[in-house]
Amino acid sequence: MSLDHATQKPHDRLAAALAAEMEAVNGLIRTRMASEHAPRIPEVTAHLVEAGGKRLRPMLTLAAAKLCGYDGPYHVHLAATVEFIHTATLLHDDVVDESAQRRGRPTANLLWDNKSSVLVGDYLFARSFQLMVETGNLRVLDILSNAAATIAEGEVLQLSAAQDLRTDEGIYLKVVRGKTAALFSAATEVGGVIAGVDEAQVQALFDYGDALGIAFQIVDDLLDYQGDSKATGKNIGDDFRERKLTLPVIKAVAKADATERAFWSRVIEKGRQEDGDLDHALSLLERHGALAETRADALAWTAKAKDAMATLPESDLRDMLIELADYVVARIS
Amino acid sequence: MSLDHATQKPHDRLAAALAAEMEAVNGLIRTRMASEHAPRIPEVTAHLVEAGGKRLRPMLTLAAAKLCGYDGPYHVHLAATVEFIHTATLLHDDVVDESAQRRGRPTANLLWDNKSSVLVGDYLFARSFQLMVETGNLRVLDILSNAAATIAEGEVLQLSAAQDLRTDEGIYLKVVRGKTAALFSAATEVGGVIAGVDEAQVQALFDYGDALGIAFQIVDDLLDYQGDSKATGKNIGDDFRERKLTLPVIKAVAKADATERAFWSRVIEKGRQEDGDLDHALSLLERHGALAETRADALAWTAKAKDAMATLPESDLRDMLIELADYVVARIS
Repeated sequence: MSLDHATQKPHDRLAAALAAEMEAVNGLIRTRMASEHAPRIPEVTAHLVEAGGKRLRPMLTLAAAKLCGYDGPYHVHLAATVEFIHTATLLHDDVVDESAQRRGRPTANLLWDNKSSVLVGDYLFARSFQLMVETGNLRVLDILSNAAATIAEGEVLQLSAAQDLRTDEGIYLKVVRGKTAALFSAATEVGGVIAGVDEAQVQALFDYGDALGIAFQIVDDLLDYQGDSKATGKNIGDDFRERKLTLPVIKAVAKADATERAFWSRVIEKGRQEDGDLDHALSLLERHGALAETRADALAWTAKAKDAMATLPESDLRDMLIELADYVVARIS
Repeated sequence: MSLDHATQKPHDRLAAALAAEMEAVNGLIRTRMASEHAPRIPEVTAHLVEAGGKRLRPMLTLAAAKLCGYDGPYHVHLAATVEFIHTATLLHDDVVDESAQRRGRPTANLLWDNKSSVLVGDYLFARSFQLMVETGNLRVLDILSNAAATIAEGEVLQLSAAQDLRTDEGIYLKVVRGKTAALFSAATEVGGVIAGVDEAQVQALFDYGDALGIAFQIVDDLLDYQGDSKATGKNIGDDFRERKLTLPVIKAVAKADATERAFWSRVIEKGRQEDGDLDHALSLLERHGALAETRADALAWTAKAKDAMATLPESDLRDMLIELADYVVARIS
């Protein structure tokens, strides 16, 4: 491993290895998000797309297809599909969360209105289906339409579960699969399917994406209670103030006595928060080992992702995906 | 034609002829809108589905497939797909329009919240794609994903066009195709495609649905200025008060002198309406023959729908679809 290699993030190495394909994906995204008749559409989407997310999901699709030896054109369509679905859910999430900021910029619903966010999101969903239909592969259509249903179902579930102390780790996992992991696992799985690899390898690609997505979300939950706000861009306790029942809190609630339960009910379910509540919450998380357990869960999911990837044939791309899994948890190691 | 036949609406005759298939469609809709994990989903959708729309779109698909001699199972999937897409757009429309009533009941966004309407709509979109993928027919996937994009594009276009006096009949037609005709034409076209009929017949089915949908919307626009509110359930002038640039107004604006233009700009673009404005608007529509011309357009589109259907092989279902086209304009004849 060269010094250059060691100091470059896995995400950047993936981007470099996939540069030509990502260029094609970006070109396809630009073409397909255009609308001759409704100029509002490219205005809204350009705002989001140019804000430059990390394009992690389309890279997962490209990497999965290439490491499986795919040499056709359709991994580019599938990568753009995955990014369109992601962007559509961001637009709708911002309406649902009434967010004011996304990727460091004002959200589309603030700049335009909720109407545009809802309808342009619908447009991107429809565009994503057009793109995947062009691959002519019924199995990828099945996988991606199932993922879209899981995403929407998870989001609806979150509406009722997020502030309900009865939410357990099983429900949490369903929500997280909907919010994050379903699109990660579909992104990697379709890469293998389009390449025509055997079932065991398709399953390994699915397992990798699923475990990576779950680890990603758990790390996010954990950093909200013990992160370095300079590194993460989040303030400690944002989730707490927004009354989100994240994994550390679910673990602490499971071990809470009656007094502690009353505290959680007041601050999360009823939302009546007072000065000092965040510190008290942190002390309860510590007392029950909830942060340590959450960290252990994230590491376990990362290990699962790496184990799955290790069953695939050796290649540079495979190793980058393994390193990517390590990188996700590096922020909490 | 028996007396019984003559007094029965074409819609009811279609429903009777397709009763067994519609039963299957309703069963599929009930099964697929369920969600094990998110009980909010069937709550919201049952509210809409039980409110009992006319189920016109799924009947179009069933009728088209059957009159083309289809005897497989997938017209039922496609009919349910079409109704899911329709229901999803209704949920999102209610958020966009901030509507309080739909099908005579409070809208879902009023009973629950905008969040549920957005996310449950997304869920139904995803479910509709799962259903169409099950048919295994790539051409119907192509048609329906294109229709979904046209619908969303038309809705976004309407956001900017509805209160802009520069909106001409060409833009109006694009909006109407998005709002109504794209799903009608896809509904009939996929019926022919799944039945495997030749291109000329597929085109005729598309043309029928397209023209029927456009006629339907134009009649709606016209009734808003000259309907009988008891028969239509709408009050005269609702579109005017909501500042909608519908076809009669577009025609009057095209012939307006400077004073009239200023009037339209004030009431539609600026929304500063005063007592007597509706009467003045009606007198301008009369002066320029805008209502008569709108009526003639609706009749022309109906004729187009009937001509298209007449090219298909004779059958009872074909005749019911022809009568349905007549029935759409009967309200303005």
